[in-house]
Amino acid sequence: MTPIIDESGSAGIVKTSILSLSLPPEGLLLECGRTLGAINIAYETYGELTPERDNAILVLHALTGDAHVAGCHTPEDKKNGWWDFMIGPGKAFDTNRYFVVCTNIIGGCQGSTGPASINPASGRPYGMTFPMLTIGDMVKVQKMALAQLGITQLFSMVGGSMGGMQVLEWILRYPEMVRSAIMIASTPKCSAQSIAFNEVGRQAIITDPHWRNGEYYGSSAKPETGLAIARMIGHITYLSEQSMNQKFGRRLQKREEYSYEFTGEFEVESYLHYQGLRFVQRFDANSYLYLTKAMDYYDAAADWGKGNLEAACSRVKAKTLVMSFTSDWLFPSHQSKELVKALRQNNADVSYVELDSDYGHDAFLIPSATLSRVVDSFLDNLYQEGEAE
Amino acid sequence: MTPIIDESGSAGIVKTSILSLSLPPEGLLLECGRTLGAINIAYETYGELTPERDNAILVLHALTGDAHVAGCHTPEDKKNGWWDFMIGPGKAFDTNRYFVVCTNIIGGCQGSTGPASINPASGRPYGMTFPMLTIGDMVKVQKMALAQLGITQLFSMVGGSMGGMQVLEWILRYPEMVRSAIMIASTPKCSAQSIAFNEVGRQAIITDPHWRNGEYYGSSAKPETGLAIARMIGHITYLSEQSMNQKFGRRLQKREEYSYEFTGEFEVESYLHYQGLRFVQRFDANSYLYLTKAMDYYDAAADWGKGNLEAACSRVKAKTLVMSFTSDWLFPSHQSKELVKALRQNNADVSYVELDSDYGHDAFLIPSATLSRVVDSFLDNLYQEGEAE
Repeated sequence: MTPIIDESGSAGIVKTSILSLSLPPEGLLLECGRTLGAINIAYETYGELTPERDNAILVLHALTGDAHVAGCHTPEDKKNGWWDFMIGPGKAFDTNRYFVVCTNIIGGCQGSTGPASINPASGRPYGMTFPMLTIGDMVKVQKMALAQLGITQLFSMVGGSMGGMQVLEWILRYPEMVRSAIMIASTPKCSAQSIAFNEVGRQAIITDPHWRNGEYYGSSAKPETGLAIARMIGHITYLSEQSMNQKFGRRLQKREEYSYEFTGEFEVESYLHYQGLRFVQRFDANSYLYLTKAMDYYDAAADWGKGNLEAACSRVKAKTLVMSFTSDWLFPSHQSKELVKALRQNNADVSYVELDSDYGHDAFLIPSATLSRVVDSFLDNLYQEGEAE
Repeated sequence: MTPIIDESGSAGIVKTSILSLSLPPEGLLLECGRTLGAINIAYETYGELTPERDNAILVLHALTGDAHVAGCHTPEDKKNGWWDFMIGPGKAFDTNRYFVVCTNIIGGCQGSTGPASINPASGRPYGMTFPMLTIGDMVKVQKMALAQLGITQLFSMVGGSMGGMQVLEWILRYPEMVRSAIMIASTPKCSAQSIAFNEVGRQAIITDPHWRNGEYYGSSAKPETGLAIARMIGHITYLSEQSMNQKFGRRLQKREEYSYEFTGEFEVESYLHYQGLRFVQRFDANSYLYLTKAMDYYDAAADWGKGNLEAACSRVKAKTLVMSFTSDWLFPSHQSKELVKALRQNNADVSYVELDSDYGHDAFLIPSATLSRVVDSFLDNLYQEGEAE
């Protein structure tokens, strides 16, 4: 066993690279029936690929994540990658052992091709002319990107939330390519409630007068108000009632008594405003529209089992680890359990761990010795099997 | 016992009356420190007040409710009052026995004075010059209105959600006036999560360019987009994951296959849009701002017990019935249980019933034989005690 959460074990100085996908002349056919003619994918890697190319692990980020999952870009960076506590020498995803790759999803806005990218056909940003995407499209693109990096087999893969949907899609779509897979705080399908929250967020964006049918890229006035509201809604769903009570309770913002004014009276209000403001500085509103739609469309049972999850799961060959958190109400444990049940009905090699946490859906992003230990142990067992072979 | 849910037991044709409060010359002093100089209260009554004036029951509506709680306004009405299944001859609130009164809350927009009302001092609508309100202010006004109707003792009172906050405030503020009280799907304080949802709804309204700092009353362009978004957010919190799955699941709106377009793909999206559109036809955006703030401010322990709910509850004299629903995640059962515990610590006469329901927070608005039976039995026991005296 490797040591867990070794603060000294940084992935070090890393950089985001851009890969231009080699596509057929007609472009890549997407599930919506349209094609995309030029695709860049931003990615980062950590550790070294073995000569046998058998130690690659793909990390799949969530809705607003990016390829920068660990380490820092410059020595002056105040913040490391979004999952730094999990990835590095001696950490759960031990970069002394594994070659870890994280790609920014297509449709995003952090290096990979998305609605803010220039459409080669028009010379202008795609905006709402960008084709609708699905989780399946994202995975198809990831496979092509990995192939160009010389990777055709994955030792493992991992993703939380929307990243977990991609993990499930991977082991259904390309079962022969994946030796093991870890799905955290995710779901085999987007529920009506999740679709509802996503839709209200989208409505906040498209009713912002600055959205202008998505053609705001040249302008200084962007749909930042709508995007901030969408983020605030999302943010509430990422926390739990308990964590919000612990973090804010009914504490007032910089005062002892009620001001009886509409401006941020409670700390939780100021916090949400801050989250909204910070988000619009790093995220594109149109990407938010496309990526939330891709989540809404996700339904593994419908896509691979004619509506039957057990039938869909008959495709799975990977050894899987499914994890959920007790206080996650966006993708609650029972949704993970549904998947675990369907995998077990197929006698698949699946482990399920429900972690006790007050942090809600976002728990997978918060350093946790238990989370690290469970993942480390899962990977280590598999690695030892390989060594023994 | 009276028969339950007797469809023939309609409260009949009723009308909303307007009461002009008799106020001191300086007006009514509110908790925010400001005064209000002229107050109208819309109300409806059902049944007859006894000569002893000992059979009055006050119904307190929720955030967007109104005084029209039972019966219909004209024989042609397609819809009865919002709690018609509970109130009428032979129903749980049996109008053959009880004199039921429902007042529209101050700050509302359905007959009672609120931000859309004309400010006598300026001759123009108050808009955002309307003073901030609290649940305590609402209750103070209700007491004055009842006094003008000749009612100084209440046989019982009942409220769900924000109405339940008013019930609790009543039995803390005027313990001598209330013989019994029923609180349904409510809470002794607004949690950080509830404040957060309320604040995002308010942000949707005030960032709507048509809001114009609340001065939209003369205009045809009102902040309907923002108000609709606020309603959609609220509506999700009123339902449960289960009820949304049962009601909509992932069904598509009038099609068999994905359209891969942004316009209402799933039924749940169309439903939310419809709820938003319908709401803006009947509700004022500024009222939504003021009433959600009043909810946020509510904290019975802080107001009456220096932060200690048990201490606050030492004031209670009423016999109470507290009810919650298993799938309510806006005001979950544990919040009701906290109140019940504090009442029991004071040896108060309290009954608690957790009703098994998939309908979420809105369950109290949905006809239920169990809900009717529990309320009927609670009131009937009390009524029989009175008869026996």
